Amino acid sequence: KINPDRLWDSLMEMAKIGPGVAGGNNRQTLTDEDAEGRALFQRWCEDAGGSVKVDRLGSMFAEFPGTDPEALPVYVGSHLDTQPTGGKYDGILGVLGGLEVIRSMRDLGIRTRRPIVVVNWTNEEGTRFAPAMLASGVFAGVHDLAFAYGRKDANGLSFEDELKRIGWQGEEEVGARKMHAYLELHIEQGPILEAEGKDVGVVTHGQGLRWIQCTVTGKASHTGSTPMAVRRNAGRGLAQITELVHEIAMKHQPNAVGAIGHIDIHPNSRNIIPETAVFTVDFRSHVQETLEAMADELLERAPKICADLGCTFAHEMAGAFDPPAFDETLVARIRAAAERLGYSHMDIVSGAGHDACWINRVAPTAMIMCPCEDGLSHNEAEEISKDWARAGADVLMHAVLETAEI
Amino acid sequence: KINPDRLWDSLMEMAKIGPGVAGGNNRQTLTDEDAEGRALFQRWCEDAGGSVKVDRLGSMFAEFPGTDPEALPVYVGSHLDTQPTGGKYDGILGVLGGLEVIRSMRDLGIRTRRPIVVVNWTNEEGTRFAPAMLASGVFAGVHDLAFAYGRKDANGLSFEDELKRIGWQGEEEVGARKMHAYLELHIEQGPILEAEGKDVGVVTHGQGLRWIQCTVTGKASHTGSTPMAVRRNAGRGLAQITELVHEIAMKHQPNAVGAIGHIDIHPNSRNIIPETAVFTVDFRSHVQETLEAMADELLERAPKICADLGCTFAHEMAGAFDPPAFDETLVARIRAAAERLGYSHMDIVSGAGHDACWINRVAPTAMIMCPCEDGLSHNEAEEISKDWARAGADVLMHAVLETAEI
Ligand SMILES: NC(=O)NCCC(=O)O
Ligand SMILES: NC(=O)NCCC(=O)O
Repeated sequence: KINPDRLWDSLMEMAKIGPGVAGGNNRQTLTDEDAEGRALFQRWCEDAGGSVKVDRLGSMFAEFPGTDPEALPVYVGSHLDTQPTGGKYDGILGVLGGLEVIRSMRDLGIRTRRPIVVVNWTNEEGTRFAPAMLASGVFAGVHDLAFAYGRKDANGLSFEDELKRIGWQGEEEVGARKMHAYLELHIEQGPILEAEGKDVGVVTHGQGLRWIQCTVTGKASHTGSTPMAVRRNAGRGLAQITELVHEIAMKHQPNAVGAIGHIDIHPNSRNIIPETAVFTVDFRSHVQETLEAMADELLERAPKICADLGCTFAHEMAGAFDPPAFDETLVARIRAAAERLGYSHMDIVSGAGHDACWINRVAPTAMIMCPCEDGLSHNEAEEISKDWARAGADVLMHAVLETAEI
Repeated sequence: KINPDRLWDSLMEMAKIGPGVAGGNNRQTLTDEDAEGRALFQRWCEDAGGSVKVDRLGSMFAEFPGTDPEALPVYVGSHLDTQPTGGKYDGILGVLGGLEVIRSMRDLGIRTRRPIVVVNWTNEEGTRFAPAMLASGVFAGVHDLAFAYGRKDANGLSFEDELKRIGWQGEEEVGARKMHAYLELHIEQGPILEAEGKDVGVVTHGQGLRWIQCTVTGKASHTGSTPMAVRRNAGRGLAQITELVHEIAMKHQPNAVGAIGHIDIHPNSRNIIPETAVFTVDFRSHVQETLEAMADELLERAPKICADLGCTFAHEMAGAFDPPAFDETLVARIRAAAERLGYSHMDIVSGAGHDACWINRVAPTAMIMCPCEDGLSHNEAEEISKDWARAGADVLMHAVLETAEI
């Protein structure tokens, strides 16, 4: 079993870097705070006997040798970057949970045949540079390197320039590594495990995602002197599409969700009718047909809504993946570990996207979920209990040891 | 009659300062560009024999003596600041039209009994520092000086600090001046004069305004893993209130308008349900009861809409004025001047708020309107013809000379 106090202390220590304004974190990818968090993680890994390699997208691989130098390693990890108003656990628990497995193995004098590598994937959140899970996506061959390098933040800074600026661009080719397996512990970010009173979620599937970035274009004009009849108000396009997205998601209950989280209005002045509204629709479902049906319905109806308002509608995909099904052997191993350790557990679908969803394409992959209070995440008030963290990390340790062949 | 080429050249010269990205201007109040525009205007006034005084809010008064040093002056002017995506004429035509009257009087050797003062009011647009017509509002006793000084822009910079920074804080007490009359030439910013084929609008009334800044508060949570049923999406509050504002304005056709131009979403991330939406509703009408009825209906229905979404609603007034009726003698004088000069004209209600709406409270005031193409304003594509500018400025000259007693 792992050492829950040490795991908790490390989580709290990391949370001191890039604190938020309300008890959470603002340690967005490729900021100075991200660099500081990476340096701390590197030091901890080296103290635990690991050696840290960095790839060209800044993903960090802390290698801990096994007894068989020829054997493919077992990978374990998640991400250290956060939302602008993020919590202390989203991603961090998986990275520091992996490190805690290593530290506990040293305490207990356990060695495995296969090497173990603890990973910190760059830019999982996708807030600063869309899409989410960017580095793991390139690793899995979903995007190419140039695509990732060229992503721009809201200030027009590129991913490549910012990665160089913070000093974490490595030499290693992205995706060059072969994995025996990939295991990720993550908080649920939803209310189901807590509501069902379970300590551990055994993740069988993930939701697929469509991020549809929409641009409604009307005409900027004076709010006071433009008669109602001749207005072309892009804000009304946004309004009606916001409600359309909700309506579409509700049609597919309980197998789908949909919302708009990011909105940009131009010129955004109190006395100017909005000329453009740019916003991203986020649709998710673990059912492939549902996911496609939702996107199709939006793209069929939104242009008509806008035309009726004298506006035009355009869109581009800002992110997309289909619902992943995780490796059945690994999933069964996680379920058995939870059972053996005496933790209450249930099978669950991951509501959020995770690096594991991409790595699943290139290696046998599975995920373990930890409950979180009120299902709250992407909020500084995100909270978990030490007991939940312990249960998830214990199950992770058993699954890692079995997979890495003790 | 005025010199239309000189007026036009001055308009084009001023438009070179703080150019926009699409042929218009971005010369927002209290920016370096504003300072540069002020310096040019000052030079022009001094070249025409005036002396420029500046009050504590930076409003500029270019004084041209009459034959009777005891007589109260006639004031004429408007504003030189623009929207972030503004045009070359909104405000500028009134200031440089006033200057052109002076220049033409010099050409023609005309002197009036009363002095004439050409004014540039600070921060008419209200985009950078709400509310609009700020300096003329303090002049007319609607706001106090401390209120104006304390206004903050989106970056948290205060009006007072920015005014000092650009070097245009004067010594003169705001509102100390007594006026015999105030006359303002302005572009219509709406489509009516052009559609009716008229050269000149004789403004009898203005619209009143209510700027109601609303805050809808929900709960930030993950767009993927938060079930639809437990979401508290502030973005849906914005959407439904956007449509409510439209519905309310449509109820009072053709005597009212309403829209939302400024929207701020927090945390504004693609995978976070909006926690707060802050936005300003802009309602206008020239009918007092209609204006009040619209604001009342919004404030009655919006809280219920938000409660149904699990959100809360709060509001504050970000600006308010009642419909002004201009001085009947001056209005008749303008109408007679247009008639005498042979310009086609019609009576019109001003759709936008203007400095004249405030000054109307402390001095006999009237306005002249110039058509603009497609009614487009608060847009870089704002355009007028030289003939329209000439007609408006000719009528202004006649009204000024008659009022200042030739
Ligand atoms: N786990 C997580 O929040 N990932 C970000 C990508 C997503 O929005 O699902
Ligand atoms: N004329 C003008 O655009 N003034 C700004 C104040 C308003 O929104 O009416």
